[in-house]
Amino acid sequence: MFWTKVFIPTIKETPKEAESLSHQLLLRAGFVRMLMAGAYIYLPMGLRVLEKIQGIVRQEMNACGASELLLPALHPLELWQKTGRDKDLGQVMFQFQDRRGRKVTLGPTHEEVITDLLKNNLSSYRQLPLVLYQIQTKFRDEIRPRFGLIRACEFIMKDAYSFDQDQAGLDKNYKLMYEAYQRIFSRCGLKTLITEADSGVMGGKVSHEFMAPSPLGEDIVLFCSTCKLTRALSREKIENEAGSRHAEKETNNSCPNCHLEMARINTIEVGHIFKLDTKYSQAMQANFSDSSGQLKPLVMGCYGIGVSRLISAIIEQNNDTDGIIWPGQVAPFGIIILPLDVTNQEVMQAANSLYQELKANGLDVLFDDRDERAGVKFKDADLIGVPASIVIGKKSIGEKNIELRIRKDKSIQLIPRENAVKFITKLLS
Amino acid sequence: MFWTKVFIPTIKETPKEAESLSHQLLLRAGFVRMLMAGAYIYLPMGLRVLEKIQGIVRQEMNACGASELLLPALHPLELWQKTGRDKDLGQVMFQFQDRRGRKVTLGPTHEEVITDLLKNNLSSYRQLPLVLYQIQTKFRDEIRPRFGLIRACEFIMKDAYSFDQDQAGLDKNYKLMYEAYQRIFSRCGLKTLITEADSGVMGGKVSHEFMAPSPLGEDIVLFCSTCKLTRALSREKIENEAGSRHAEKETNNSCPNCHLEMARINTIEVGHIFKLDTKYSQAMQANFSDSSGQLKPLVMGCYGIGVSRLISAIIEQNNDTDGIIWPGQVAPFGIIILPLDVTNQEVMQAANSLYQELKANGLDVLFDDRDERAGVKFKDADLIGVPASIVIGKKSIGEKNIELRIRKDKSIQLIPRENAVKFITKLLS
Repeated sequence: MFWTKVFIPTIKETPKEAESLSHQLLLRAGFVRMLMAGAYIYLPMGLRVLEKIQGIVRQEMNACGASELLLPALHPLELWQKTGRDKDLGQVMFQFQDRRGRKVTLGPTHEEVITDLLKNNLSSYRQLPLVLYQIQTKFRDEIRPRFGLIRACEFIMKDAYSFDQDQAGLDKNYKLMYEAYQRIFSRCGLKTLITEADSGVMGGKVSHEFMAPSPLGEDIVLFCSTCKLTRALSREKIENEAGSRHAEKETNNSCPNCHLEMARINTIEVGHIFKLDTKYSQAMQANFSDSSGQLKPLVMGCYGIGVSRLISAIIEQNNDTDGIIWPGQVAPFGIIILPLDVTNQEVMQAANSLYQELKANGLDVLFDDRDERAGVKFKDADLIGVPASIVIGKKSIGEKNIELRIRKDKSIQLIPRENAVKFITKLLS
Repeated sequence: MFWTKVFIPTIKETPKEAESLSHQLLLRAGFVRMLMAGAYIYLPMGLRVLEKIQGIVRQEMNACGASELLLPALHPLELWQKTGRDKDLGQVMFQFQDRRGRKVTLGPTHEEVITDLLKNNLSSYRQLPLVLYQIQTKFRDEIRPRFGLIRACEFIMKDAYSFDQDQAGLDKNYKLMYEAYQRIFSRCGLKTLITEADSGVMGGKVSHEFMAPSPLGEDIVLFCSTCKLTRALSREKIENEAGSRHAEKETNNSCPNCHLEMARINTIEVGHIFKLDTKYSQAMQANFSDSSGQLKPLVMGCYGIGVSRLISAIIEQNNDTDGIIWPGQVAPFGIIILPLDVTNQEVMQAANSLYQELKANGLDVLFDDRDERAGVKFKDADLIGVPASIVIGKKSIGEKNIELRIRKDKSIQLIPRENAVKFITKLLS
């Protein structure tokens, strides 16, 4: 695609409102814009990354035998009253009356809705196990939206729900999801720590959090470098520490195995999986008849990924002083072609023929067709973080070799023009 | 995919709440469920159709040089006050205050948001023309949500916006979109009438509506069968007619060319394109500097398609007494394989090897793995409307030929098993 058609409004100066590195880079590189605190516009480049991440999530969910659906954002409040979570989550739930006088809330999560769906549309053990998921927009009335996409009022989540006859079935699906999550984050170029976690308002007894280390992270994971044990520091404890001006910071943080002090690592929560058991199915009478005809509550698990938040977490872990460094599988484009003089016909012909060949090979290619100085183009290419670039200038015309630059380490390699397309396609796939 | 994994809760009886044929079929075939009036769950089959439609829309938009972004649903009300449309559209706008005391509205449409974005991020004629679009969820507080996905409170739209220096640029983009719309509806298997229309609260002088004929349609198009002229009957006139008990129905409906009575055709609005000119850019001071450095307001067009509504419109035009008949490009699956005895190993092996071969050829194949009677499977296959089906029973084992059944005309053709995959792939692509 052509730069001037994509709409990539890069910014030279660091915007004042940006509260974190990823937030700065998302704004400067023209990936997002804030519409109001907590509500973001995904510009075309941001949306491309979002879709790459969603593509990975879908592949891995489908590989687990999960089936995708789409639940509404508008919920009748009465559904939430059945589990009492209208009180637990009341503060973050946007609520209003519609013109017909119904009390409506914008879904901050979807356990109630999906349990109600299964209650009304599944009756027999023969329909189990079943795993459903969606990639959908959630709404939470955050008192303090922060860090761009990290804590937003409108954000995109993948939420999956498993339904089983018994605990053994749940254990099996939980393990499948746990492993799928490891693959998803790894494919996104994200390092994560996995901790057993507090289930909070979701309920259930077992849950695991997937935490991406980052200095801006508001969650703290204790990590033993000797035995690799991880432990989540509870939110309560973190808040207490903050309240008591870090007085208790150093206490009780030793590894239960090695008895050595554990490292405190700031992290961003990117995934959380829960064994819900029958909390929701019992509260909402979502039953199935087992093979002997007896009614039993569905045994449930739920599995969340903060899809839009992932964009920020990936940037926090993949950047340098010049900009973003996108991991290959989530990059908005695989390669950018930089013709240095767009008024020179020979340059444009050479650049365009390479562009067409790469595109025909199935690559996502960006073509910087702006009439800008070379310095501006180089700086912008580094800022937006596309994995590879090729410069075409007057000098390169007629040359046997072209220069391929790798964003990550800024290394340059000369490759023969005649093999270039094959070489680059292999490199980027 | 396997029927038991996809989650396709078909219903034998016609649900009472269904107000139209498409609504009935969507419920009975297990494509959607209502969560509350005007808010629908897209079950996996419904979502698959939605995504097929979205894929067509994206292809045709991208072919016009349009670039995709994603705008938020949460809007600051003050943005709407700048154009005064908080009053025009006030009744259908869900409005509330957040915890920080901000007045927030859920976007019923996005002209204000996109104009504000361009005002802040585009400055020069060199960045023009630019066409941006999104496929996104809209919210409208309908007093009377009806007909399932046809008039919903939460629905999915494609809205595109063009930005040009002058009227000539707008005319060019408008024409491109007009033609793209014709291709989109045709690929969706939808017949449409195109009429010059009233621009209403959108503003601007020129607009065209794309109307899908259907008995349940609430919009009326006058059509001259002699010269093919179409004319929209204004909403005002339709309401007046309803008010005066059809007294004026027959007046003034003659063709201005042929002077013959025009046919009254009930239709569903599926697309609407507008030349907005400078209505929004002037109200919001969204200017660019032209080649002589002079500030001028952006010349805009906007282009909408009711993406979720299209699902219903397609069904209204493509069905028979047994169920839905999906046009090929929007079908949730291309073909369904029906093994008649899932406890018979030979049957399952034969069915499964065909399934794997078709899948490997890139086809969307549904495998009915339910332990149900043949009659149930046949009825459900017709109901969900997959274009083609193959039955594998005890009798077919060892036969040289397999029976391919076409849903549309219920014709059956014998094809040699050894060429089956090639034949079916060609037929369905």
